[in-house]
Amino acid sequence: MRVAALAGGVGGAKLAYGLARLLSPDALSVIVNTGDDVELFGLSISPDLDTVCYTLAGLANEETGWGQRDETWQAFSAVERLGGPAWFHLGDRDLGTHLERTRRLANGEPLSAITRDFCRAWGVRHPVFPMTDQAVRTRVMTVELGELSFQSYFVEQQCRPRVTGFRFEGVEASRPAPGVLEALGQADCIVVCPSNPWVSIDPILAIPGIRQAVAAKPVVAVSPIIGGKTVKGPAAKMYAELGIEPSASAVARHYRPWLTGFILDQVDNGLVNEIASWGIITKATDTLMTSLDQRERLAKEVIAFCEIIAERN
Amino acid sequence: MRVAALAGGVGGAKLAYGLARLLSPDALSVIVNTGDDVELFGLSISPDLDTVCYTLAGLANEETGWGQRDETWQAFSAVERLGGPAWFHLGDRDLGTHLERTRRLANGEPLSAITRDFCRAWGVRHPVFPMTDQAVRTRVMTVELGELSFQSYFVEQQCRPRVTGFRFEGVEASRPAPGVLEALGQADCIVVCPSNPWVSIDPILAIPGIRQAVAAKPVVAVSPIIGGKTVKGPAAKMYAELGIEPSASAVARHYRPWLTGFILDQVDNGLVNEIASWGIITKATDTLMTSLDQRERLAKEVIAFCEIIAERN
Repeated sequence: MRVAALAGGVGGAKLAYGLARLLSPDALSVIVNTGDDVELFGLSISPDLDTVCYTLAGLANEETGWGQRDETWQAFSAVERLGGPAWFHLGDRDLGTHLERTRRLANGEPLSAITRDFCRAWGVRHPVFPMTDQAVRTRVMTVELGELSFQSYFVEQQCRPRVTGFRFEGVEASRPAPGVLEALGQADCIVVCPSNPWVSIDPILAIPGIRQAVAAKPVVAVSPIIGGKTVKGPAAKMYAELGIEPSASAVARHYRPWLTGFILDQVDNGLVNEIASWGIITKATDTLMTSLDQRERLAKEVIAFCEIIAERN
Repeated sequence: MRVAALAGGVGGAKLAYGLARLLSPDALSVIVNTGDDVELFGLSISPDLDTVCYTLAGLANEETGWGQRDETWQAFSAVERLGGPAWFHLGDRDLGTHLERTRRLANGEPLSAITRDFCRAWGVRHPVFPMTDQAVRTRVMTVELGELSFQSYFVEQQCRPRVTGFRFEGVEASRPAPGVLEALGQADCIVVCPSNPWVSIDPILAIPGIRQAVAAKPVVAVSPIIGGKTVKGPAAKMYAELGIEPSASAVARHYRPWLTGFILDQVDNGLVNEIASWGIITKATDTLMTSLDQRERLAKEVIAFCEIIAERN
């Protein structure tokens, strides 16, 4: 079973970690959203890419959901002393990643090549791809503040403004990063991790060529919404503000045109029949990943489900 | 006695510190070389400016001569793990300075305004000016490697290549930073700190308007060369490679067209008559500043000498 996983930040990284414990490096690749990348203090920051890589490397800070564990904060204490903006905190070790990435990008190297080298240095053996080497930036349209960059919405405004829509700036001119279409083409099944459909998965699918490559394969998605809520992040709030009742059904409907199989949490067992009625093979299980073992257990169920789905196709 | 001091890095910062202990903030301003500023990892770094400000603030690392004391190195350990270039080490706290300066420069704020705010945050009460708000970059011509940026010569190559000359890129289009000409004009005496004449003082003098403003005043220079050697840095090596015997005399000759008074170390007492014969009032004393008290003692002698010089003019 060869799997290509699409992932955003924390939830996606957790499932990717579980999958990486069970699948060999030639049987799993992870394609990561870079729509929430941001340039701050002159540095090129790729939050989702780093969360996935740090998580796979065992370096992630499990408490915050971003940055590295055992982190120190000397640089940003100094920034604060100077009256600098404190809303986007970067740890000292994490800064090392951004410094070296920024240096290599300025040298003209593509993000995908830099990510491959960083993964090697961190001991990440499974291929991790940014969705694209071009700059694609998720813009969030809001009632209160108009259009915001994703990080301004997410970190600075703490997701408070009500969203009216999204835009992926630069997406028309972007191409899938080298290796992405090959990874999708070689996969027996695509796994859409429990990431935010609007701002983690949609940007990946918006890269010209990716949606078609995904739609050509059996696809299993795991719902990031459990009992109408998200474990982390604003996906449920976004659905509500866009006039859609937040639920696992809403997620399945979001992906419906190309979705083959859907995994939702057991608390949402009552939604299985509705989703199945759309021709989507649906399975309810415990989808919470609050421990490393739970990540592996869910990954095991996802792989078993992929095998069933792939066989039927 | 109002003093405007011209300074480069460590030696200049030490005398500036001594002067600042004796003169009130309205009686001392420090004009600092920015020719060795460098852009690395996307960050705008001003080594001499930071050395002077950190020293005046009591934050300087006295052992290394650069960066902050009680520094940590998490970010650059991370850069090294990623295989990044390790020749220019930046501490975590020091990074905070570069991050916030880079952010504000990118916002279009001038370096002089940023420096003023940083000084306020660090508790530096005496005005510190970058020589200019424009980018002026010292380029070092070498036998072995051709033209190098100053930091590439100084840090990466550790001053090993033999120099054949210097060039201050961008200097023609530069202007003195706001406040610099006023500080020079209001001074009773200009003090040229014991900094490298070639790469710390010459760049300041090369900014259009500064040399004339300096030459219009009594000027006292303190020799950075003691017994034919420098306490720190490549000034003596540079003189030798340019075919000039390194000595306090060579420094006085360097500044001769506009120099009024010269302070050299007591070990160079034998050179006093030669320099005096050029019409420069010359004084030998202990110029080593290996303790905070010695900085203040030398500063006291410099101020007393300035008073004599200024009275005669």
